[in-house]
Amino acid sequence: MEQLTSILIKGGTIVTMDPRRRVISDGAIFVNDGVIEQIGKSTEVKTQSRAEFEIDARGKVVLPGLIDIHVHLAQALIRGCADDTSLIDWLQKFVWPLQGNFDAQDGKASAELCMLEMIESGTTTFLESLLHSRYGFDGIAESVERSGMRGILSKTVMGLPGYGSEKSIMHSGMIEKAETCLREVEMYFKRWNGKADDRIRVWYGARSLGGCTPELYAQIARDAKRLRTGVTMHLSEVQEDVRYANKEFGKMPAEFMDQVGLVGPNVVFAHGVWLTEKDWQIIARKGASVAHCPSSNMKLSSGMAKVPEMMNAGVNVGVGCDGGPSNNCYDMIREMKTASLLHKVRTMDPLTMSAETLLEMATVNGARALGLQSQIGSIEVRKRGDLIIVSMRKPHLTPAFNPISHIVYAAEGSDVETTIIDGEIVMENRVVKTLNEPEIIRNANDRAVKLLERAGIEIVPKWRPE
Amino acid sequence: MEQLTSILIKGGTIVTMDPRRRVISDGAIFVNDGVIEQIGKSTEVKTQSRAEFEIDARGKVVLPGLIDIHVHLAQALIRGCADDTSLIDWLQKFVWPLQGNFDAQDGKASAELCMLEMIESGTTTFLESLLHSRYGFDGIAESVERSGMRGILSKTVMGLPGYGSEKSIMHSGMIEKAETCLREVEMYFKRWNGKADDRIRVWYGARSLGGCTPELYAQIARDAKRLRTGVTMHLSEVQEDVRYANKEFGKMPAEFMDQVGLVGPNVVFAHGVWLTEKDWQIIARKGASVAHCPSSNMKLSSGMAKVPEMMNAGVNVGVGCDGGPSNNCYDMIREMKTASLLHKVRTMDPLTMSAETLLEMATVNGARALGLQSQIGSIEVRKRGDLIIVSMRKPHLTPAFNPISHIVYAAEGSDVETTIIDGEIVMENRVVKTLNEPEIIRNANDRAVKLLERAGIEIVPKWRPE
Repeated sequence: MEQLTSILIKGGTIVTMDPRRRVISDGAIFVNDGVIEQIGKSTEVKTQSRAEFEIDARGKVVLPGLIDIHVHLAQALIRGCADDTSLIDWLQKFVWPLQGNFDAQDGKASAELCMLEMIESGTTTFLESLLHSRYGFDGIAESVERSGMRGILSKTVMGLPGYGSEKSIMHSGMIEKAETCLREVEMYFKRWNGKADDRIRVWYGARSLGGCTPELYAQIARDAKRLRTGVTMHLSEVQEDVRYANKEFGKMPAEFMDQVGLVGPNVVFAHGVWLTEKDWQIIARKGASVAHCPSSNMKLSSGMAKVPEMMNAGVNVGVGCDGGPSNNCYDMIREMKTASLLHKVRTMDPLTMSAETLLEMATVNGARALGLQSQIGSIEVRKRGDLIIVSMRKPHLTPAFNPISHIVYAAEGSDVETTIIDGEIVMENRVVKTLNEPEIIRNANDRAVKLLERAGIEIVPKWRPE
Repeated sequence: MEQLTSILIKGGTIVTMDPRRRVISDGAIFVNDGVIEQIGKSTEVKTQSRAEFEIDARGKVVLPGLIDIHVHLAQALIRGCADDTSLIDWLQKFVWPLQGNFDAQDGKASAELCMLEMIESGTTTFLESLLHSRYGFDGIAESVERSGMRGILSKTVMGLPGYGSEKSIMHSGMIEKAETCLREVEMYFKRWNGKADDRIRVWYGARSLGGCTPELYAQIARDAKRLRTGVTMHLSEVQEDVRYANKEFGKMPAEFMDQVGLVGPNVVFAHGVWLTEKDWQIIARKGASVAHCPSSNMKLSSGMAKVPEMMNAGVNVGVGCDGGPSNNCYDMIREMKTASLLHKVRTMDPLTMSAETLLEMATVNGARALGLQSQIGSIEVRKRGDLIIVSMRKPHLTPAFNPISHIVYAAEGSDVETTIIDGEIVMENRVVKTLNEPEIIRNANDRAVKLLERAGIEIVPKWRPE
């Protein structure tokens, strides 16, 4: 997509997330050719010629686009299909049989549904975790390109599934061969990494402990280093991960990952619920990041990650919405509140995880986790134009006290009015311009019905849109 | 208000919350003169003459209006004014000084703001807890009447403030005399109870332990019995309540309340975070109810109420959003999810507090708590026409699997499209018909600024709507 758009946003309260100038009231931003060229008071920002788009942001708050660092695109299509059930049933009776019956059209339908929801709730960048080849990588990457989003797509790599009983319980449709996986990541990397004006990146998605041999993890680490790309992996999501690492390797999970070379600044560990101080120290020292997914961890009873503690130990922690059957939505605004509240009550310290900390995690920390801190995460001159505008003239965001508090504690995804990614207006006044919403919803409903049939799963009570 | 409206809702998926017929797909509801007269399949419901309003609910879900059994109307105006702070600072530096500077116009402005938000997020009935006389009871009651909501207004009764240090720390503007309180409740009861077609009720709002003498609690119990009305009171919200009851009375909080005669079917205890088995047994045996307020308890680090456990012990538990500085919003849809997730992770049991249980708590249990179970809480013939219609054709509510799961785990307040209370359409397609939204927002912003000035409080960072 050729970038020539210029946008002037004027009159809004700008929450820059730049520590040098955190909040600018009656501020303006000029974005030109994808790049933020000017920021300041409305009176300070002067453009040589009229901007192609002028947005009146009076009564609104402008923020950096939110960054979701743990998303399963292919789970939007199975939203709400596995509630109030144990993790083993969740996987074995619902998620795996459904995903194991996906075809590439389902994968694309799910990814588009998911991106639509993310754009509508202010997420501009995401890290997709674990794309199985049956979801159709190319189709999904094409959808990311068309959506206008900034997306990192990680292709699953698995070897020996898995620890304990995973080998026997994993749905046959979900099993992939290690060599094929490695070859495919490299193929997709060459095909897609840096495409769409560098909005698309391709990473390795290593399966969690027990899903790869130690040699395969080491291979992933070497390959990622060679391609200068990233790796994401579920780590210590459940207690079983810790027991497995201890039993098989005599080590804590992060300690084992470090031994195989898979802890570094290019690595994002998802969940990290059961990480301990020893893990945090390794992760912090090596500069890896953790994706905190509070709703998923709570809904699946995975546990409560020690987030403020690991942040104190120096770990970079961002936020992730996880997936359709575990959250069950992809709304970073609601996720920020959940994270803050969870840790306030867990630690019994109402001062922990402030609104400001959460917004930092969902922007600045997310950007750092993805190695994109020089490009996104805050509203600064020379960064990419990834911005959201939140409409504040609503009862639940009144009175106008503190914009950061309102965004984190009172707002919901649908308060996002305009989403700008890479200097392009992707959603304007709640209308997504890049994706066909009615068609995507219709298609998702049709495909979900057929998917349930193929997998032999019935949802009760069920409803049909008509 | 004269009730003559007839409404036919047709083609929707009806979640009745009536256990005999839980979900009706392609259903219809006929509401006439405030009362639900027919429910069934769209083909079954026949009206003699054309309904005044016909609502096409295809692709939508129809639910009973949500019932919030713990709300502070007067805290909407101080939303977001006291975040990330300890409870003692929260009260002493922010909430009390601000509320202690309220006048009757502030009270009315806050109540209207709060009701606007409740209507917009699907709450049709609320129990207001602790209206101070300085908030202007009559003005607030008039606003409830005009809003179209079903509201129980409890007037604060306090005696000796308070336990430990409360006496010395309470803002002078918040102190009231016991005799005046008792007299006023009775006056307001006579003036307002049963008014607005019985949408308004007046209860006693007893201050929490330490805020009244044992004699005053006993007096409240006797007076409430005489007037055949209800009492609400914060109980065991914080650990200090338990220590106080043990130290002063040698009893657990509910045990003490029972001794003074204040545990009965007309009583709603708010929070109940630190209630123990002994308390549950008393509360269950006497038929009192508990308002669970998860967001508030989490944000203020009050603790995690043992909700599934107390429900197993037979306690009727409903849901409450609490207030603007503690939640910071009045959205029962988001509150249901928070409650479910909190207890799933607290108990490490993903089967507990299912979506269905939460919806029951927010409807049926709420109605029972308020003694209104024969009138509201489920969609049944002869009950009042309190209904909400949720628009489901949205990415975050797609695909169409299970309507209850989507409402509890994926929806947000703004997905409510239409709110009907007592057979009147109070909000249609997101436009509230009974209250002037732009004016209420403008007024709230103006009053909040002045209130902060009077109280000498500065919020940082601050923003102004223009």
